[in-house]
Amino acid sequence: MAKKLLGIDLGGTTVKFGILSLEGEVQEKWAIPTNSLEDGKHIVPDIVASIKRHLELYGLTKDDFVGIGMGSPGAVDRQEKTVTGAFNLNWAKTQQVGSVIEAEVGIPFAIDNDANVAALGERWVGAGANNPDVVFVTLGTGVGGGVIADGNLIHGVAGAGGEIGHIIVEPENGFDCTCGNKGCLETVASATGIVRLAHQMAESYEGSSPIKASLDNGDNVTSKDIFDAAQSDDSFANSIVDRFTFYLGLATANISNILNPDSVVIGGGVSAAGEFLRSRVEANFQKYTFPQVRKTTQIKLAELGNDAGIIGAASLASQFIEG
Amino acid sequence: MAKKLLGIDLGGTTVKFGILSLEGEVQEKWAIPTNSLEDGKHIVPDIVASIKRHLELYGLTKDDFVGIGMGSPGAVDRQEKTVTGAFNLNWAKTQQVGSVIEAEVGIPFAIDNDANVAALGERWVGAGANNPDVVFVTLGTGVGGGVIADGNLIHGVAGAGGEIGHIIVEPENGFDCTCGNKGCLETVASATGIVRLAHQMAESYEGSSPIKASLDNGDNVTSKDIFDAAQSDDSFANSIVDRFTFYLGLATANISNILNPDSVVIGGGVSAAGEFLRSRVEANFQKYTFPQVRKTTQIKLAELGNDAGIIGAASLASQFIEG
Repeated sequence: MAKKLLGIDLGGTTVKFGILSLEGEVQEKWAIPTNSLEDGKHIVPDIVASIKRHLELYGLTKDDFVGIGMGSPGAVDRQEKTVTGAFNLNWAKTQQVGSVIEAEVGIPFAIDNDANVAALGERWVGAGANNPDVVFVTLGTGVGGGVIADGNLIHGVAGAGGEIGHIIVEPENGFDCTCGNKGCLETVASATGIVRLAHQMAESYEGSSPIKASLDNGDNVTSKDIFDAAQSDDSFANSIVDRFTFYLGLATANISNILNPDSVVIGGGVSAAGEFLRSRVEANFQKYTFPQVRKTTQIKLAELGNDAGIIGAASLASQFIEG
Repeated sequence: MAKKLLGIDLGGTTVKFGILSLEGEVQEKWAIPTNSLEDGKHIVPDIVASIKRHLELYGLTKDDFVGIGMGSPGAVDRQEKTVTGAFNLNWAKTQQVGSVIEAEVGIPFAIDNDANVAALGERWVGAGANNPDVVFVTLGTGVGGGVIADGNLIHGVAGAGGEIGHIIVEPENGFDCTCGNKGCLETVASATGIVRLAHQMAESYEGSSPIKASLDNGDNVTSKDIFDAAQSDDSFANSIVDRFTFYLGLATANISNILNPDSVVIGGGVSAAGEFLRSRVEANFQKYTFPQVRKTTQIKLAELGNDAGIIGAASLASQFIEG
């Protein structure tokens, strides 16, 4: 029987598992809730038990697998296969992950951070179409990403490579970022960042707009509300989307002016705005890229949705394929 | 006898040659003038003749060499080993380089563009200290560079990777760039860019300053004059250096926020301003990098000067080392 890969996407709410072919096809998938009680000490044992149970269920053994890959929040030590400071898992201190899973399950194990792993997934069988040069940007509660250049995930000297959310897009009058700087992409391009932009722009907007009325009223306005209103021709909402797509277009253009990837793939919850968002980011991207890059680097929407994590995690494990 | 590498740095004025040990030590070097007459058709034959003559002079044969590497201006096709559009060599059309040299000299040959090759040199035995993640920025008549990430030179999908001069640092009111865009780093951080900034800032500067007087007088002011005046406490010159180092600090910070290299190495003619320039770039770099990058990525001055080209070219040839 053809060998398989096992991908694990460890999140604060659920742990997702997938059994994949070596070509990246998801053959089985399942999920368990993340039990982060008691400093998250149940998480790794729960994962081990779930793997064992499902291998038995599917009539598989460890010999059917090339390897296991995992994406995790927090600071990942790829050599030691540990995770530190994953606060949504209650893993403040360094947690042994790979050594435990390898000992219990008997399959080689690899781990990387969740945004990098999602980037690998989109690159492998998603919008990246297995090209060696792909940049992934994920727009969610924060802005994260991963850079794959010349076929390698770029970690940098201290593992901070691919932290695209901290590119400075507003060097002189930017919003405060959680990182301590001002004007990071994350402050204006995350779900909360778009709403922050809306509040700032509402102060000087004088026309009538349902979105502005909601903001002035203190209602809970989401980035989705703003995109929906913009698509319904609310001109205030459109001006917010213009500003957001300026920042994202500028940042993706500068990434591409440095790296000339085949594509920059936009994913995460905010990317649900789809082609309406992509085309407007692309217009700014084209304005700020130089000709060679403009002609060759594309702005794409992510294709794998929630499966990017398990697929990218499985692709991490493909390093154990022999020969 | 230990095997050697041959590095060639092809420029518009001279062709530099170096014979290096496998460890990157320059054992012999020489140069010939670049004869770009008659569509540059003499250049490759001149290189072949010079190599043959010097091998004989030093009592060496082709069997003493692992390979030859070359850095060239223009658009380099690494697979075909050809160069197109190198206008300072009068090579407008595609020029066969590698096939001729390999056939005539009998040593495996590799080629890449000159800025990438200089980056490889600084990374190998210069300021990069052979780290796998190094970014090189060269400030000369233009602004160029090279990105080495996870040990690989990053070319991108169309070979435009590392074109750091076209990062946009002034998205809304920038100067026109030769690439057709506005606000590229090159428009404010090249030797001519600094003088362009000076002219712009002279219009609104009201104090007295020898540099402002020279500009207003229509004298020929160079970037060196501006740095020299700034070091002599000309406050107008200092405000130009502040603006220049803001742009360069912002650009190097954003590169590092994406890639987290071990170091960003600054070279080229403008970098002759030395520690005075480096420390002021670093102050801006630290302002615009997020904490993990600020703590781990360093701003360094290039160390190899004019030898970066032959050393980097030689390092290209180390791909032919067997095993």
